[in-house]
Amino acid sequence: MTGRAVSQDEREETDRRLMAAALRLSKKHSGLTFTNPSVGTLIVRDDGDGPVIVGRGVTAIGGRPHAEAEALAEAGDLARGATAYVTLEPCAHHGRTPPCANALVTAGVTRVVGAASDPDPRVSGNGYAILRVAGIEVIERILADEAAAQMAGYLIRSLKKRPQVTLKLAVSSDGMIGRQGAGQVPITGPVARRQVHLMRAEADAILVGIGTALADDPDLTVRLPGLEARSPARIVIDRHARLPLGSKLVQTAQRVPVLIAAAPEADPERKAALESAGVKVLATETYEGRVALPEFLEDLAAQGMSNILVEGGADTARYFLDEGLIDRIALFFGPASVGEGGIAAPLDRDHIPADFRLLGEARFGDDSYAEWIRGF
Amino acid sequence: MTGRAVSQDEREETDRRLMAAALRLSKKHSGLTFTNPSVGTLIVRDDGDGPVIVGRGVTAIGGRPHAEAEALAEAGDLARGATAYVTLEPCAHHGRTPPCANALVTAGVTRVVGAASDPDPRVSGNGYAILRVAGIEVIERILADEAAAQMAGYLIRSLKKRPQVTLKLAVSSDGMIGRQGAGQVPITGPVARRQVHLMRAEADAILVGIGTALADDPDLTVRLPGLEARSPARIVIDRHARLPLGSKLVQTAQRVPVLIAAAPEADPERKAALESAGVKVLATETYEGRVALPEFLEDLAAQGMSNILVEGGADTARYFLDEGLIDRIALFFGPASVGEGGIAAPLDRDHIPADFRLLGEARFGDDSYAEWIRGF
Repeated sequence: MTGRAVSQDEREETDRRLMAAALRLSKKHSGLTFTNPSVGTLIVRDDGDGPVIVGRGVTAIGGRPHAEAEALAEAGDLARGATAYVTLEPCAHHGRTPPCANALVTAGVTRVVGAASDPDPRVSGNGYAILRVAGIEVIERILADEAAAQMAGYLIRSLKKRPQVTLKLAVSSDGMIGRQGAGQVPITGPVARRQVHLMRAEADAILVGIGTALADDPDLTVRLPGLEARSPARIVIDRHARLPLGSKLVQTAQRVPVLIAAAPEADPERKAALESAGVKVLATETYEGRVALPEFLEDLAAQGMSNILVEGGADTARYFLDEGLIDRIALFFGPASVGEGGIAAPLDRDHIPADFRLLGEARFGDDSYAEWIRGF
Repeated sequence: MTGRAVSQDEREETDRRLMAAALRLSKKHSGLTFTNPSVGTLIVRDDGDGPVIVGRGVTAIGGRPHAEAEALAEAGDLARGATAYVTLEPCAHHGRTPPCANALVTAGVTRVVGAASDPDPRVSGNGYAILRVAGIEVIERILADEAAAQMAGYLIRSLKKRPQVTLKLAVSSDGMIGRQGAGQVPITGPVARRQVHLMRAEADAILVGIGTALADDPDLTVRLPGLEARSPARIVIDRHARLPLGSKLVQTAQRVPVLIAAAPEADPERKAALESAGVKVLATETYEGRVALPEFLEDLAAQGMSNILVEGGADTARYFLDEGLIDRIALFFGPASVGEGGIAAPLDRDHIPADFRLLGEARFGDDSYAEWIRGF
């Protein structure tokens, strides 16, 4: 059987289409691969009748094995002469198991299409180099921006030594995020709230300021059927260690971790009482009377955190924005108004910082949603 | 007042003596500074009558502020013209607070004596360079080996992307570490056991093989008055996820973290049951039917772990030794013999691998102790 001729344009279009499929596959384990990124791999043959997927892989839950191993295992002998689509440059460093770049070579893959490059100094460029030296054709940066947006946590932690920080706020029709002294005010409906719980389940930690912790007494857990066990750590920026022992956060600290960022001069007895209740107290430096956020985020990254979801309040959101430490803005817009005593949102749809670009918009029930990311 | 002349030899001897004091000071917060190393700093003046310590600092509990800030705050104006003794190269990277190297410059210190260099690429050499550019005399590598041994966890994690691994075993007079089918056999006395609990309190995790977990049903916590809250995570190498739900480890998992290293093909129901009980299941690759240890240790380091204490059993100890993954050997020798059915120790005093050197010996009650480290 002779294959029909494939034009360069057709080939590029096919590569983009298959990479998009690999990226969708890679999402399957987002938030479940600990400090490894969730990567997707497809092994694709074209024996003349167009591309056929013969192997599929995604980074295993828990972070290992990597996606390539799984996809190659499914493809078996069919990998010989095939093209591999990898959403991240294949790893190049040796442990006990062969690096993925070598596994692709051994399997006889003849062409590798990659999306994002890996900034890990043990991989960066080396993964692709191993392939090229073995005579494999390598195409880099297909849907690279989409891949980078999806793996931003891993990439930002590698490059900037801090986690990716997402600011999530629910904004009323009159531009408010809550009401003074009213505790939690529902701004969005049940569909949007489920979406928020999904975002929480994919984060390594949810962060609020002590003001919000005191005013709302939130528990900041994931309350979605089947996903309760996915509740990430809860973090409170709490310079004076004021988080009450009776708060929902402290009361649930044995089950879902709670960290507070407290200054060294905070009351030692309060800190000891919180620690006895299971709260982890992280010492932070202060700067002009506030917690030094870059240093604090660096320590969180060193502990393996790649994705932090900042949920407020307004002061905390503004502080992160002012420090240039927000990478992604996720706004939910509800149709109701808060009215008198409202707390103004720290930003709105028309005043997103200039270095952010709109990534997407959606509707969740009666609420609308928009998401912006910043280049890195 | 005119100072007496100080010879070069006297000065070197003084530097070593003061660095030894800074190293003793730095031990104060070992195991309490999360992912930051516990560093010591002394600010010392010599106005003609010999050295006088005017500032003392150790990395704060929780990791920040760094030692230099505390020592400079205590010294105040007396830092001007003084010598600073730092057990680790001062940090050079900017967050919100000035790097320690710049803080030393601003304080007017005129001489800095350093022990270990910092392998963090943002610091390495840059900390000392900032000082020299400012006209400060810098003496490097005073008691560098002692400092490196003390900060080995941090240095190994920076350089090798894995935690420091210490193998701790208690060996009977007939060279045994236990008895087949007998559960935990006491080999050492109460003084040595307290010492083991201190070692546990300074580790980030205690690791055993599933064989030991099944045979001994240990809880692997710190049981020393006042240090109970210092119990580190417990890790079981448990490829098939066999750790019983009724084991002491699982029963205490809500209070003190338990991780198991399980292969992806382990029974999903067993993994889910363990996770429901609060156990964290880390997926690992396997190699010749065993957990791939280098990859597993890399993942632990990425989660911020710098010090792992391997407590057995014999097979697990041998596997770590065979893989070249032990950095420090700590052996306790008890006077009693185990006799029939004994489990032979995987190494003894006369068969320590050649690349280790004896670091020290001690007596704890009726037991003796010896410790070896490997260069890195």
